[in-house]
Amino acid sequence: MKQVIVARADLKMGKGKLAAQVAHASLAAAEEARSRREPWFTEWRSQGQKKIVVKVQGEDELRELLKKARAKKLPAALIEDAGLTQLEPGTATCLGLGPAPEEELDPITGDLTLM
Amino acid sequence: MKQVIVARADLKMGKGKLAAQVAHASLAAAEEARSRREPWFTEWRSQGQKKIVVKVQGEDELRELLKKARAKKLPAALIEDAGLTQLEPGTATCLGLGPAPEEELDPITGDLTLM
Repeated sequence: MKQVIVARADLKMGKGKLAAQVAHASLAAAEEARSRREPWFTEWRSQGQKKIVVKVQGEDELRELLKKARAKKLPAALIEDAGLTQLEPGTATCLGLGPAPEEELDPITGDLTLM
Repeated sequence: MKQVIVARADLKMGKGKLAAQVAHASLAAAEEARSRREPWFTEWRSQGQKKIVVKVQGEDELRELLKKARAKKLPAALIEDAGLTQLEPGTATCLGLGPAPEEELDPITGDLTLM
């Protein structure tokens, strides 16, 4: 069981800003899992809630991954920034996927490199 | 209502690693709030779950902040890394504080600078 957070490497985010956006995505996807895939959520938590952060180079890639995850009915949460600092309002920054079994996530995210 | 995640700037963490540790702290502190301070948690979520990431320069500072938060009975979660990559096992990396009202958190974290 793991959670994968996909972040855009092409945006000019400071590392604190990036971390906050990743946390946002992690929490939102975990909440979705809790309500729709409770056994996955519970198992992930009991295993130490493994998370990895990987990168893409643009918004199109992020939305493509979201589409694939939704097609497989995996927990998924796209984060759009309110735009108060550093970014334009509505900029998609991160995508939280899972917690879900690794074999469900790997076909979608397995080719992405660690951030 | 906000959540403050305090991260160590003195550790050699890559930005993806840092983001994962911050997410860990955010989730753990949010879970604590959900079970012990449910109205704070609910209000924070409905307001868009504001999070800020600030920095300290060492483990002692992190543990001092934890002590202060516990004394005020604020939701708090210290994250220690399993040490599988980049860090020694048991290294304290981040502290999640809140969600809690800003006036409860600011006396503890108000002097820290953004990461």
